[in-house]
Amino acid sequence: RRGKMAKSTQLIDNEVFRAFATYAAIVLLKMMLMSLITAYFRLTRKAFVNPEDAASYGKGEAAKKYLRTDPDVERARRGHLNDLENIVPFVGIGLLYALSGPELSSALLHFRIFTGARILHTFAYLIPLPQPGRGLSWAVGYAVTFSMAYNVLKAAWLL
Amino acid sequence: RRGKMAKSTQLIDNEVFRAFATYAAIVLLKMMLMSLITAYFRLTRKAFVNPEDAASYGKGEAAKKYLRTDPDVERARRGHLNDLENIVPFVGIGLLYALSGPELSSALLHFRIFTGARILHTFAYLIPLPQPGRGLSWAVGYAVTFSMAYNVLKAAWLL
Amino acid sequence: RRGKMAKSTQLIDNEVFRAFATYAAIVLLKMMLMSLITAYFRLTRKAFVNPEDAASYGKGEAAKKYLRTDPDVERARRGHLNDLENIVPFVGIGLLYALSGPELSSALLHFRIFTGARILHTFAYLIPLPQPGRGLSWAVGYAVTFSMAYNVLKAAWLL
Repeated sequence: RRGKMAKSTQLIDNEVFRAFATYAAIVLLKMMLMSLITAYFRLTRKAFVNPEDAASYGKGEAAKKYLRTDPDVERARRGHLNDLENIVPFVGIGLLYALSGPELSSALLHFRIFTGARILHTFAYLIPLPQPGRGLSWAVGYAVTFSMAYNVLKAAWLL
Repeated sequence: RRGKMAKSTQLIDNEVFRAFATYAAIVLLKMMLMSLITAYFRLTRKAFVNPEDAASYGKGEAAKKYLRTDPDVERARRGHLNDLENIVPFVGIGLLYALSGPELSSALLHFRIFTGARILHTFAYLIPLPQPGRGLSWAVGYAVTFSMAYNVLKAAWLL
Repeated sequence: RRGKMAKSTQLIDNEVFRAFATYAAIVLLKMMLMSLITAYFRLTRKAFVNPEDAASYGKGEAAKKYLRTDPDVERARRGHLNDLENIVPFVGIGLLYALSGPELSSALLHFRIFTGARILHTFAYLIPLPQPGRGLSWAVGYAVTFSMAYNVLKAAWLL
Protein backbone atom coordinates (compact mmCIF):
# COMPACT_ATOMS: atom_id res chain seq x y z
CA ARG A 1 0.00 0.00 0.00
CA ARG A 2 2.74 2.42 0.94
CA GLY A 3 4.66 1.67 -2.25
CA LYS A 4 1.66 2.41 -4.40
CA MET A 5 1.02 5.73 -2.71
CA ALA A 6 4.63 6.75 -2.95
CA LYS A 7 4.36 6.12 -6.67
CA SER A 8 1.16 8.09 -7.12
CA THR A 9 2.31 11.06 -5.00
CA GLN A 10 4.81 11.73 -2.27
CA LEU A 11 2.66 14.34 -0.54
CA ILE A 12 0.91 11.97 1.88
CA ASP A 13 4.34 10.63 2.90
CA ASN A 14 5.29 14.12 4.07
CA GLU A 15 4.75 14.31 7.84
CA VAL A 16 3.66 17.96 7.80
CA PHE A 17 1.20 17.32 4.99
CA ARG A 18 -0.20 14.32 6.86
CA ALA A 19 -0.68 16.47 9.96
CA PHE A 20 -2.42 19.11 7.84
CA ALA A 21 -4.68 16.48 6.25
CA THR A 22 -5.71 15.26 9.70
CA TYR A 23 -6.55 18.66 11.21
CA ALA A 24 -8.09 20.08 8.02
CA ALA A 25 -10.40 17.04 7.84
CA ILE A 26 -11.33 17.49 11.53
CA VAL A 27 -12.24 21.20 11.26
CA LEU A 28 -14.13 20.65 7.98
CA LEU A 29 -16.12 17.82 9.61
CA LYS A 30 -16.80 20.12 12.57
CA MET A 31 -18.08 22.75 10.13
CA MET A 32 -20.30 20.16 8.42
CA LEU A 33 -21.72 19.25 11.84
CA MET A 34 -23.28 22.74 11.98
CA SER A 35 -25.68 21.67 9.20
CA LEU A 36 -26.98 18.87 11.40
CA ILE A 37 -27.29 21.18 14.42
CA THR A 38 -29.28 23.70 12.35
CA ALA A 39 -31.49 20.89 10.98
CA TYR A 40 -32.03 19.59 14.53
CA PHE A 41 -33.20 23.01 15.75
CA ARG A 42 -35.41 23.53 12.65
CA LEU A 43 -37.15 20.21 13.24
CA THR A 44 -37.54 20.46 17.04
CA ARG A 45 -38.51 24.18 17.01
CA LYS A 46 -40.60 23.72 13.85
CA ALA A 47 -39.06 26.81 12.28
CA PHE A 48 -38.61 26.63 8.52
CA VAL A 49 -37.88 29.03 5.71
CA ASN A 50 -38.99 27.01 2.67
CA PRO A 51 -42.75 26.36 2.27
CA GLU A 52 -42.00 22.84 0.94
CA ASP A 53 -40.15 22.05 4.21
CA ALA A 54 -43.08 23.12 6.39
CA ALA A 55 -45.61 21.26 4.20
CA SER A 56 -45.30 18.00 6.14
CA TYR A 57 -46.49 19.78 9.32
CA GLY A 58 -49.78 20.95 7.89
CA LYS A 59 -51.57 22.08 4.72
CA GLY A 60 -52.11 25.62 3.44
CA GLU A 61 -52.57 28.15 6.24
CA ALA A 62 -51.72 25.55 8.91
CA ALA A 63 -48.21 25.18 7.48
CA LYS A 64 -47.59 28.93 7.31
CA LYS A 65 -47.15 29.29 11.05
CA TYR A 66 -44.01 27.15 10.79
CA LEU A 67 -42.43 29.59 8.31
CA ARG A 68 -40.72 31.64 10.98
CA THR A 69 -37.34 32.37 12.48
CA ASP A 70 -36.25 30.84 15.78
CA PRO A 71 -33.41 32.17 17.99
CA ASP A 72 -31.71 28.76 18.30
CA VAL A 73 -31.87 28.13 14.56
CA GLU A 74 -30.45 31.59 13.83
CA ARG A 75 -27.67 31.09 16.40
CA ALA A 76 -26.62 27.79 14.82
CA ARG A 77 -26.69 29.45 11.38
CA ARG A 78 -24.46 32.30 12.58
CA GLY A 79 -22.02 29.76 14.02
CA HIS A 80 -22.00 27.96 10.67
CA LEU A 81 -21.32 31.18 8.72
CA ASN A 82 -18.56 32.12 11.17
CA ASP A 83 -17.01 28.71 10.52
CA LEU A 84 -17.10 29.34 6.77
CA GLU A 85 -15.50 32.76 7.25
CA ASN A 86 -12.67 31.32 9.36
CA ILE A 87 -12.18 27.68 8.37
CA VAL A 88 -11.99 28.46 4.63
CA PRO A 89 -8.91 30.73 5.13
CA PHE A 90 -7.39 28.11 7.47
CA VAL A 91 -7.74 25.33 4.90
CA GLY A 92 -6.50 27.47 2.00
CA ILE A 93 -3.59 29.14 3.79
CA GLY A 94 -2.85 26.00 5.83
CA LEU A 95 -2.38 23.93 2.66
CA LEU A 96 0.07 26.48 1.24
CA TYR A 97 1.82 26.63 4.63
CA ALA A 98 2.10 22.82 4.82
CA LEU A 99 3.72 22.85 1.35
CA SER A 100 6.15 25.66 2.24
CA GLY A 101 8.41 23.39 4.28
CA PRO A 102 7.76 24.37 7.93
CA GLU A 103 9.19 22.43 10.90
CA LEU A 104 6.79 19.65 11.95
CA SER A 105 6.65 20.99 15.52
CA SER A 106 5.68 24.53 14.38
CA ALA A 107 3.12 23.14 11.97
CA LEU A 108 1.52 20.90 14.61
CA LEU A 109 1.37 23.87 17.01
CA HIS A 110 -0.50 25.97 14.42
CA PHE A 111 -2.89 23.20 13.39
CA ARG A 112 -3.69 22.07 16.95
CA ILE A 113 -4.25 25.54 18.40
CA PHE A 114 -6.55 26.45 15.49
CA THR A 115 -8.55 23.23 15.80
CA GLY A 116 -8.92 23.64 19.56
CA ALA A 117 -9.91 27.30 19.23
CA ARG A 118 -12.63 26.56 16.66
CA ILE A 119 -14.10 23.73 18.76
CA LEU A 120 -14.19 26.09 21.75
CA HIS A 121 -15.76 28.77 19.53
CA THR A 122 -18.62 26.45 18.63
CA PHE A 123 -19.33 25.64 22.28
CA ALA A 124 -19.05 29.33 23.21
CA TYR A 125 -21.56 30.20 20.46
CA LEU A 126 -24.11 27.46 21.08
CA ILE A 127 -24.23 27.34 24.91
CA PRO A 128 -23.73 30.48 24.78
CA LEU A 129 -20.83 31.48 27.04
CA PRO A 130 -20.62 35.11 28.19
CA GLN A 131 -18.17 37.28 26.28
CA PRO A 132 -15.22 37.49 25.86
CA GLY A 133 -15.30 33.66 25.62
CA ARG A 134 -16.43 33.50 22.02
CA GLY A 135 -14.43 36.57 21.03
CA LEU A 136 -11.18 35.16 22.39
CA SER A 137 -11.59 31.75 20.77
CA TRP A 138 -12.31 33.52 17.47
CA ALA A 139 -9.22 35.75 17.86
CA VAL A 140 -6.91 32.81 18.58
CA GLY A 141 -7.97 31.01 15.40
CA TYR A 142 -7.64 34.25 13.44
CA ALA A 143 -4.12 34.87 14.77
CA VAL A 144 -3.00 31.32 13.92
CA THR A 145 -4.19 31.71 10.31
CA PHE A 146 -2.47 35.09 10.09
CA SER A 147 0.78 33.56 11.35
CA MET A 148 0.59 30.81 8.72
CA ALA A 149 -0.07 33.41 5.98
CA TYR A 150 3.01 35.34 7.11
CA ASN A 151 5.09 32.16 6.82
CA VAL A 152 3.66 31.38 3.37
CA LEU A 153 4.47 34.86 2.04
CA LYS A 154 7.96 34.72 3.57
CA ALA A 155 8.64 31.30 2.02
CA ALA A 156 7.22 32.28 -1.38
CA TRP A 157 9.19 35.52 -1.60
CA LEU A 158 12.51 34.56 0.01
CA LEU A 159 13.22 31.33 -1.85
CA ARG B 1 3.60 20.06 -23.50
CA ARG B 2 3.40 16.89 -21.49
CA GLY B 3 7.12 16.94 -20.83
CA LYS B 4 7.01 20.46 -19.52
CA MET B 5 4.17 19.67 -17.14
CA ALA B 6 5.84 16.54 -15.89
CA LYS B 7 8.85 18.67 -15.07
CA SER B 8 6.84 21.31 -13.23
CA THR B 9 4.74 18.84 -11.24
CA GLN B 10 3.62 15.22 -11.46
CA LEU B 11 0.26 15.86 -9.83
CA ILE B 12 -1.70 16.48 -13.01
CA ASP B 13 -0.27 13.21 -14.40
CA ASN B 14 -1.92 11.34 -11.55
CA GLU B 15 -5.21 9.89 -12.81
CA VAL B 16 -7.04 10.34 -9.48
CA PHE B 17 -5.86 13.95 -9.19
CA ARG B 18 -6.99 14.64 -12.76
CA ALA B 19 -10.42 13.20 -11.95
CA PHE B 20 -10.58 15.39 -8.82
CA ALA B 21 -9.56 18.47 -10.83
CA THR B 22 -12.37 17.80 -13.31
CA TYR B 23 -15.19 17.31 -10.78
CA ALA B 24 -13.97 20.02 -8.39
CA ALA B 25 -13.94 22.50 -11.28
CA ILE B 26 -17.46 21.41 -12.31
CA VAL B 27 -19.02 21.81 -8.84
CA LEU B 28 -17.22 25.12 -8.25
CA LEU B 29 -18.51 26.43 -11.61
CA LYS B 30 -22.00 25.20 -10.63
CA MET B 31 -21.66 27.17 -7.37
CA MET B 32 -20.55 30.27 -9.29
CA LEU B 33 -23.63 29.92 -11.50
CA MET B 34 -25.76 30.70 -8.42
CA SER B 35 -24.44 34.29 -8.53
CA LEU B 36 -25.83 34.69 -12.05
CA ILE B 37 -29.18 33.15 -11.04
CA THR B 38 -29.46 35.53 -8.08
CA ALA B 39 -28.54 38.49 -10.31
CA TYR B 40 -31.13 37.37 -12.88
CA PHE B 41 -33.90 37.31 -10.24
CA ARG B 42 -32.77 40.65 -8.75
CA LEU B 43 -32.95 42.32 -12.18
CA THR B 44 -36.20 40.72 -13.38
CA ARG B 45 -37.99 41.06 -9.99
CA LYS B 46 -36.44 44.49 -9.37
CA ALA B 47 -35.49 43.51 -5.81
CA PHE B 48 -32.24 45.03 -4.55
CA VAL B 49 -30.52 45.45 -1.23
CA ASN B 50 -27.97 48.20 -2.05
CA PRO B 51 -29.36 51.71 -2.76
CA GLU B 52 -26.70 52.20 -5.47
CA ASP B 53 -28.04 49.11 -7.29
CA ALA B 54 -31.62 50.39 -7.31
CA ALA B 55 -30.54 53.89 -8.39
CA SER B 56 -30.75 53.11 -12.10
CA TYR B 57 -34.47 52.31 -11.71
CA GLY B 58 -35.45 55.70 -10.34
CA LYS B 59 -34.28 58.62 -8.23
CA GLY B 60 -34.79 59.24 -4.51
CA GLU B 61 -38.14 57.94 -3.27
CA ALA B 62 -38.86 56.24 -6.60
CA ALA B 63 -35.83 53.97 -6.15
CA LYS B 64 -36.71 53.02 -2.58
CA LYS B 65 -39.53 50.73 -3.62
CA TYR B 66 -36.96 48.46 -5.29
CA LEU B 67 -35.09 48.00 -2.00
CA ARG B 68 -37.01 44.92 -0.99
CA THR B 69 -36.73 41.17 -0.65
CA ASP B 70 -38.22 38.81 -3.20
CA PRO B 71 -38.99 35.11 -2.61
CA ASP B 72 -37.16 33.96 -5.77
CA VAL B 73 -34.07 36.04 -4.96
CA GLU B 74 -34.00 34.71 -1.40
CA ARG B 75 -34.43 31.13 -2.62
CA ALA B 76 -31.48 31.46 -5.03
CA ARG B 77 -29.40 32.99 -2.21
CA ARG B 78 -30.21 30.10 0.12
CA GLY B 79 -29.20 27.65 -2.60
CA HIS B 80 -25.92 29.53 -3.01
CA LEU B 81 -25.17 29.48 0.73
CA ASN B 82 -26.02 25.77 0.88
CA ASP B 83 -23.52 25.22 -1.94
CA LEU B 84 -20.85 27.08 0.04
CA GLU B 85 -21.59 24.99 3.13
CA ASN B 86 -21.31 21.72 1.20
CA ILE B 87 -19.00 22.30 -1.76
CA VAL B 88 -16.25 23.88 0.38
CA PRO B 89 -15.86 20.67 2.48
CA PHE B 90 -16.01 18.57 -0.71
CA VAL B 91 -13.18 20.53 -2.35
CA GLY B 92 -11.02 20.61 0.80
CA ILE B 93 -11.53 17.00 1.87
CA GLY B 94 -11.63 15.79 -1.75
CA LEU B 95 -8.19 17.24 -2.45
CA LEU B 96 -6.73 15.49 0.60
CA TYR B 97 -8.54 12.30 -0.41
CA ALA B 98 -7.20 12.49 -3.99
CA LEU B 99 -3.68 12.82 -2.56
CA SER B 100 -4.13 9.91 -0.12
CA GLY B 101 -3.77 7.26 -2.85
CA PRO B 102 -7.30 5.86 -3.32
CA GLU B 103 -8.22 3.45 -6.12
CA LEU B 104 -9.28 5.36 -9.25
CA SER B 105 -12.62 3.52 -9.37
CA SER B 106 -13.48 4.44 -5.73
CA ALA B 107 -12.42 8.02 -6.27
CA LEU B 108 -14.51 8.39 -9.44
CA LEU B 109 -17.51 6.91 -7.60
CA HIS B 110 -17.17 9.51 -4.82
CA PHE B 111 -16.62 12.46 -7.15
CA ARG B 112 -19.42 11.54 -9.58
CA ILE B 113 -22.07 10.82 -6.94
CA PHE B 114 -21.28 14.11 -5.16
CA THR B 115 -21.41 16.10 -8.40
CA GLY B 116 -24.68 14.51 -9.46
CA ALA B 117 -26.22 15.01 -6.00
CA ARG B 118 -25.34 18.72 -5.92
CA ILE B 119 -26.74 19.34 -9.41
CA LEU B 120 -29.97 17.59 -8.35
CA HIS B 121 -29.97 19.66 -5.14
CA THR B 122 -29.90 22.89 -7.15
CA PHE B 123 -32.84 21.80 -9.31
CA ALA B 124 -34.73 20.59 -6.21
CA TYR B 125 -34.16 23.99 -4.55
CA LEU B 126 -34.98 26.24 -7.50
CA ILE B 127 -38.01 24.46 -9.05
CA PRO B 128 -38.77 23.67 -6.06
CA LEU B 129 -39.41 19.93 -5.78
CA PRO B 130 -41.49 18.66 -2.84
CA GLN B 131 -39.50 17.23 0.05
CA PRO B 132 -37.72 14.88 0.60
CA GLY B 133 -36.23 15.58 -2.86
CA ARG B 134 -33.93 18.38 -1.74
CA GLY B 135 -33.20 16.72 1.62
CA LEU B 136 -32.14 13.44 0.00
CA SER B 137 -29.85 15.08 -2.57
CA TRP B 138 -28.26 17.09 0.26
CA ALA B 139 -27.78 13.93 2.38
CA VAL B 140 -26.14 12.00 -0.46
CA GLY B 141 -23.54 14.73 -1.02
CA TYR B 142 -22.98 14.98 2.74
CA ALA B 143 -22.43 11.21 3.05
CA VAL B 144 -19.95 11.17 0.15
CA THR B 145 -17.85 13.92 1.77
CA PHE B 146 -18.01 12.09 5.10
CA SER B 147 -16.79 8.88 3.43
CA MET B 148 -13.85 10.74 1.85
CA ALA B 149 -12.95 12.31 5.23
CA TYR B 150 -12.94 8.83 6.81
CA ASN B 151 -10.53 7.63 4.10
CA VAL B 152 -8.27 10.68 4.58
CA LEU B 153 -8.04 10.17 8.34
CA LYS B 154 -7.41 6.44 7.88
CA ALA B 155 -4.64 7.09 5.34
CA ALA B 156 -3.02 9.87 7.42
CA TRP B 157 -2.99 7.81 10.62
CA LEU B 158 -2.22 4.31 9.35
CA LEU B 159 0.72 5.09 7.08
CA ARG C 1 16.75 25.84 3.94
CA ARG C 2 16.15 25.44 0.23
CA GLY C 3 17.56 21.93 0.28
CA LYS C 4 15.31 20.91 3.09
CA MET C 5 12.21 22.20 1.34
CA ALA C 6 13.17 20.56 -1.91
CA LYS C 7 13.40 17.32 -0.01
CA SER C 8 10.04 17.70 1.70
CA THR C 9 8.21 18.78 -1.47
CA GLN C 10 9.04 20.30 -4.82
CA LEU C 11 5.81 22.27 -5.10
CA ILE C 12 7.08 25.47 -3.47
CA ASP C 13 10.06 25.40 -5.86
CA ASN C 14 7.63 25.66 -8.78
CA GLU C 15 7.43 29.31 -9.88
CA VAL C 16 3.74 29.15 -10.81
CA PHE C 17 2.85 27.50 -7.51
CA ARG C 18 4.83 30.15 -5.62
CA ALA C 19 2.94 32.88 -7.48
CA PHE C 20 -0.36 31.16 -6.63
CA ALA C 21 0.64 30.86 -2.96
CA THR C 22 1.38 34.59 -2.83
CA TYR C 23 -1.86 35.81 -4.42
CA ALA C 24 -4.07 33.21 -2.74
CA ALA C 25 -2.66 34.27 0.66
CA ILE C 26 -3.28 37.95 -0.21
CA VAL C 27 -6.93 37.50 -1.24
CA LEU C 28 -7.64 35.21 1.73
CA LEU C 29 -6.13 37.80 4.10
CA LYS C 30 -8.25 40.48 2.38
CA MET C 31 -11.32 38.30 2.99
CA MET C 32 -10.35 37.86 6.66
CA LEU C 33 -10.06 41.66 6.94
CA MET C 34 -13.84 41.85 6.38
CA SER C 35 -14.34 40.27 9.83
CA LEU C 36 -12.43 43.16 11.41
CA ILE C 37 -14.39 45.75 9.40
CA THR C 38 -17.69 44.17 10.47
CA ALA C 39 -16.51 44.09 14.10
CA TYR C 40 -15.43 47.75 13.86
CA PHE C 41 -18.89 48.80 12.63
CA ARG C 42 -20.66 46.63 15.24
CA LEU C 43 -18.65 48.26 18.05
CA THR C 44 -18.82 51.88 16.82
CA ARG C 45 -22.51 51.68 15.74
CA LYS C 46 -23.38 49.56 18.80
CA ALA C 47 -25.36 47.12 16.64
CA PHE C 48 -25.22 43.50 17.76
CA VAL C 49 -27.09 40.33 17.04
CA ASN C 50 -26.12 38.17 20.04
CA PRO C 51 -27.51 39.21 23.48
CA GLU C 52 -24.19 38.21 25.12
CA ASP C 53 -22.35 40.68 22.85
CA ALA C 54 -24.61 43.59 23.79
CA ALA C 55 -24.44 42.71 27.52
CA SER C 56 -21.34 44.82 28.17
CA TYR C 57 -23.26 47.96 27.05
CA GLY C 58 -26.03 47.66 29.61
CA LYS C 59 -28.13 45.20 31.58
CA GLY C 60 -31.50 43.69 30.76
CA GLU C 61 -33.73 46.10 28.85
CA ALA C 62 -30.89 48.63 28.47
CA ALA C 63 -28.91 46.13 26.40
CA LYS C 64 -31.84 45.24 24.14
CA LYS C 65 -31.67 48.49 22.21
CA TYR C 66 -28.25 47.43 20.91
CA LEU C 67 -29.71 44.26 19.39
CA ARG C 68 -30.40 45.83 16.03
CA THR C 69 -29.22 45.93 12.44
CA ASP C 70 -27.13 48.82 11.12
CA PRO C 71 -26.69 49.68 7.42
CA ASP C 72 -22.87 49.85 7.66
CA VAL C 73 -22.67 46.52 9.49
CA GLU C 74 -24.95 44.87 6.93
CA ARG C 75 -22.96 46.35 4.05
CA ALA C 76 -19.68 44.96 5.43
CA ARG C 77 -21.36 41.57 5.96
CA ARG C 78 -22.60 41.52 2.35
CA GLY C 79 -19.08 42.33 1.16
CA HIS C 80 -17.75 39.47 3.27
CA LEU C 81 -20.28 36.99 1.88
CA ASN C 82 -19.53 38.14 -1.66
CA ASP C 83 -15.84 37.46 -0.95
CA LEU C 84 -16.69 33.94 0.21
CA GLU C 85 -18.76 33.35 -2.94
CA ASN C 86 -15.95 34.51 -5.22
CA ILE C 87 -12.64 33.91 -3.42
CA VAL C 88 -13.47 30.28 -2.58
CA PRO C 89 -13.79 29.34 -6.30
CA PHE C 90 -10.63 31.34 -7.07
CA VAL C 91 -8.59 29.47 -4.46
CA GLY C 92 -9.97 26.05 -5.41
CA ILE C 93 -9.81 26.45 -9.18
CA GLY C 94 -6.59 28.51 -8.97
CA LEU C 95 -4.80 25.70 -7.13
CA LEU C 96 -5.83 23.17 -9.79
CA TYR C 97 -4.83 25.66 -12.49
CA ALA C 98 -1.42 26.27 -10.89
CA LEU C 99 -0.85 22.50 -10.88
CA SER C 100 -1.96 22.06 -14.51
CA GLY C 101 1.28 23.48 -15.91
CA PRO C 102 0.34 26.94 -17.27
CA GLU C 103 2.91 29.45 -18.53
CA LEU C 104 4.16 31.64 -15.67
CA SER C 105 3.19 34.82 -17.54
CA SER C 106 -0.42 33.62 -18.10
CA ALA C 107 -0.72 32.49 -14.52
CA LEU C 108 0.57 35.80 -13.13
CA LEU C 109 -1.88 37.66 -15.38
CA HIS C 110 -4.81 35.62 -14.01
CA PHE C 111 -3.73 35.91 -10.36
CA ARG C 112 -2.94 39.65 -10.49
CA ILE C 113 -6.10 40.71 -12.33
CA PHE C 114 -8.26 38.68 -9.90
CA THR C 115 -6.49 40.13 -6.84
CA GLY C 116 -6.77 43.69 -8.15
CA ALA C 117 -10.43 43.21 -9.07
CA ARG C 118 -11.37 41.91 -5.62
CA ILE C 119 -9.57 44.76 -3.84
CA LEU C 120 -11.43 47.25 -6.06
CA HIS C 121 -14.68 45.35 -5.34
CA THR C 122 -14.20 45.86 -1.60
CA PHE C 123 -13.62 49.61 -2.00
CA ALA C 124 -16.58 49.84 -4.39
CA TYR C 125 -18.79 48.07 -1.84
CA LEU C 126 -17.71 49.92 1.29
CA ILE C 127 -17.42 53.52 0.02
CA PRO C 128 -19.85 52.81 -1.87
CA LEU C 129 -19.09 53.73 -5.49
CA PRO C 130 -22.01 54.23 -7.88
CA GLN C 131 -22.76 51.30 -10.16
CA PRO C 132 -21.45 49.82 -12.42
CA GLY C 133 -18.22 50.17 -10.36
CA ARG C 134 -18.90 47.24 -8.06
CA GLY C 135 -20.58 45.20 -10.78
CA LEU C 136 -17.62 45.52 -13.15
CA SER C 137 -15.01 44.62 -10.52
CA TRP C 138 -17.12 41.57 -9.62
CA ALA C 139 -17.43 40.54 -13.30
CA VAL C 140 -13.67 40.81 -13.91
CA GLY C 141 -12.88 38.48 -11.00
CA TYR C 142 -15.63 36.10 -12.15
CA ALA C 143 -14.26 36.00 -15.72
CA VAL C 144 -10.70 35.32 -14.50
CA THR C 145 -11.88 32.33 -12.41
CA PHE C 146 -13.91 31.06 -15.36
CA SER C 147 -10.85 31.30 -17.63
CA MET C 148 -8.77 29.31 -15.12
CA ALA C 149 -11.52 26.64 -14.87
CA TYR C 150 -11.53 26.34 -18.67
CA ASN C 151 -7.75 25.77 -18.62
CA VAL C 152 -8.05 23.19 -15.82
CA LEU C 153 -10.71 21.20 -17.68
CA LYS C 154 -8.70 21.41 -20.93
CA ALA C 155 -5.53 20.20 -19.18
CA ALA C 156 -7.32 17.41 -17.28
CA TRP C 157 -9.10 16.07 -20.37
CA LEU C 158 -6.48 16.54 -23.07
CA LEU C 159 -3.47 15.03 -21.34
